[in-house]
Amino acid sequence: MTDPISLPFDLPVFNPGHVWLVGAGPGDPGLLTLLALHALRSADVVVYDALVSLDILKLARDGVVLEHAGKRGGKPSPSQPDISRRLVTLAREGKRVLRLKGGDPFVFGRGAEEAEFLAENTVPFRIVPGITAGVGGLAYAGIPATARDANSAIAFVTGHDSEGAVPDTLDWPALARSVPVLVVYMALTHLEEIARRLIAAGRRPDEPAALLSKATTPSQKVVTAPLAEIAKAALGVEPPAMLVVGDVVTYRDRLDWLGERD
Amino acid sequence: MTDPISLPFDLPVFNPGHVWLVGAGPGDPGLLTLLALHALRSADVVVYDALVSLDILKLARDGVVLEHAGKRGGKPSPSQPDISRRLVTLAREGKRVLRLKGGDPFVFGRGAEEAEFLAENTVPFRIVPGITAGVGGLAYAGIPATARDANSAIAFVTGHDSEGAVPDTLDWPALARSVPVLVVYMALTHLEEIARRLIAAGRRPDEPAALLSKATTPSQKVVTAPLAEIAKAALGVEPPAMLVVGDVVTYRDRLDWLGERD
Repeated sequence: MTDPISLPFDLPVFNPGHVWLVGAGPGDPGLLTLLALHALRSADVVVYDALVSLDILKLARDGVVLEHAGKRGGKPSPSQPDISRRLVTLAREGKRVLRLKGGDPFVFGRGAEEAEFLAENTVPFRIVPGITAGVGGLAYAGIPATARDANSAIAFVTGHDSEGAVPDTLDWPALARSVPVLVVYMALTHLEEIARRLIAAGRRPDEPAALLSKATTPSQKVVTAPLAEIAKAALGVEPPAMLVVGDVVTYRDRLDWLGERD
Repeated sequence: MTDPISLPFDLPVFNPGHVWLVGAGPGDPGLLTLLALHALRSADVVVYDALVSLDILKLARDGVVLEHAGKRGGKPSPSQPDISRRLVTLAREGKRVLRLKGGDPFVFGRGAEEAEFLAENTVPFRIVPGITAGVGGLAYAGIPATARDANSAIAFVTGHDSEGAVPDTLDWPALARSVPVLVVYMALTHLEEIARRLIAAGRRPDEPAALLSKATTPSQKVVTAPLAEIAKAALGVEPPAMLVVGDVVTYRDRLDWLGERD
């Protein structure tokens, strides 16, 4: 795909030797931004993560080099420092380097680390935000992130830290008490433990909860259950998956526009 | 603008009599989604909010009817129920109705109310998420929403409730203690009060804070100061503006890619 997008304003030029850290959104290619499409049609190399769909990679220009930065086949997954170094190397070769990540590069995407490494190495870069699943995934499940009668705050939390455990740096009791709607990214591995902690911290066992798997993709699956039963209800659901806890989940009964359409 | 976007996949058809609730993103038209562009090029009527830029409205097809849903001139602003009713009326006339909002329709955008009203009136609708300023605006200020060493949670809060006061339904002390990074939307009116509450609730007076005005637009302005001094530092800054509190603000020293480029 190399057709220009005809627009009444200019998009920034993707210069050789630059790295663009771009969010591909949660899955639906329609949720790509114009800047992301422009980057795909301009880049010499795309270094992409496992969560970026084939439909999106197909938007890259003819002759582009696609480099997978996640696990593949029997090969070990490149480490985060390996990926950052690779971006610097490619930029120094004078390539237009598109680093494409699922969701938003700065929302639990380790984009900050990559950007810092680029800055340290004086490689010019641009950040192109993407729709994060905590907003866009919920919308495709008919669950509003905020609703006037339900919440004036929402928190996004990661379900495991860099060692893979439930983050212990968080004050779960205070979190449970202070924020009416919690969205836990990467919630599947520790789902039972997370639900248990939230209930121990004061959330109602019968509070509405939902688990969203592969949100916004054709394989989207949404399971709803009271918080105390969500882990059991979600058995067999596949990653990536996020947990939503709060009264906004009940809006799905009325706002499941995608389900209505199927 | 009526050129089709040439894509290797189909975007959903915008049918007559349907309403699409679409997020226009924080300001930069490059942050529009492909679905939002497709909606602009298909809609018969666009009912848009004050925060949607002219550059974005210019993407609508020739012959489209543009209806402003915010305050304008001396006329009183239409009420929320007025807007919801208008959407139903237009849909029943068989129009393709694009309801275009700044940011994301479900993040403090009152989209849930409009969607509920459409559902009650059996008007078919679709939600098209947009980049919310709490993610995209921060990125354009060189502030990551999350960074591995800084936070495993982030909260989005509104700076005033439907009556215009600082929301009292929030447990501010628990919020201050539990979430390392707080993003307060519509923070300007009550900025001093919000900073005072957060400090009273235990946030450090010298904690890094930033006020982002008109983020991602050519008029973007970013003011950084310790939390105790942010209200004074932000005097004269224009709305819309959001407050960011947390160590991620210090990343701006290294990651201000937009400033580097000016």
